[in-house]
Amino acid sequence: MASSSSYNCPCAACKFLRRKCMPGCIFAPYFPPEEPQKFANVHKIFGASNVTKLLNELLPHQREDAVNSLAYEAEARVRDPVYGCVGAISFLQRQVQGLQNLMRPMLI
Amino acid sequence: MASSSSYNCPCAACKFLRRKCMPGCIFAPYFPPEEPQKFANVHKIFGASNVTKLLNELLPHQREDAVNSLAYEAEARVRDPVYGCVGAISFLQRQVQGLQNLMRPMLI
Repeated sequence: MASSSSYNCPCAACKFLRRKCMPGCIFAPYFPPEEPQKFANVHKIFGASNVTKLLNELLPHQREDAVNSLAYEAEARVRDPVYGCVGAISFLQRQVQGLQNLMRPMLI
Repeated sequence: MASSSSYNCPCAACKFLRRKCMPGCIFAPYFPPEEPQKFANVHKIFGASNVTKLLNELLPHQREDAVNSLAYEAEARVRDPVYGCVGAISFLQRQVQGLQNLMRPMLI
């Protein structure tokens, strides 16, 4: 009687939101039940309705990348509520600047 | 009769949300009326209630940086709904990798 249908195993989003995971659920392909924290973070930072709207405005083949980038941003914001992933951007910008400064004398 | 009090000039957030901007409004110091797009972006991507919650969990001196990083992320997501500011992180990581590869032969 085992089945992989979403009726038996709701996706992480529907489980979190305590709702029935229907066939065609927009979250199910991107929030598998074995990764509950991924949806919890995205929900905390962006909210389920904002993410639903965003996914509905994208083409299906763009949605996986979008969810993964949202999950990355959300996790960064949970870890660092002040700077989120903008902290990583500042760090990388300083690293690029530092490397360019190091290289300059070598190129003269 | 001119006054700079928030009674006369609601902040961009309260104007957007069509509500009275009360003294002590948590948004007012960071969303001045002359920058309406800043709040519109943050509202579209994160939602006003999520931002309120996040600001309330921070110390007052951390809130300006938090709002500015949220505004940066929101603007990036409005411009690029698939990758948002994670696109900038990928670009910078490739730039660092490229510079390190360029430097390697110079250091041998």
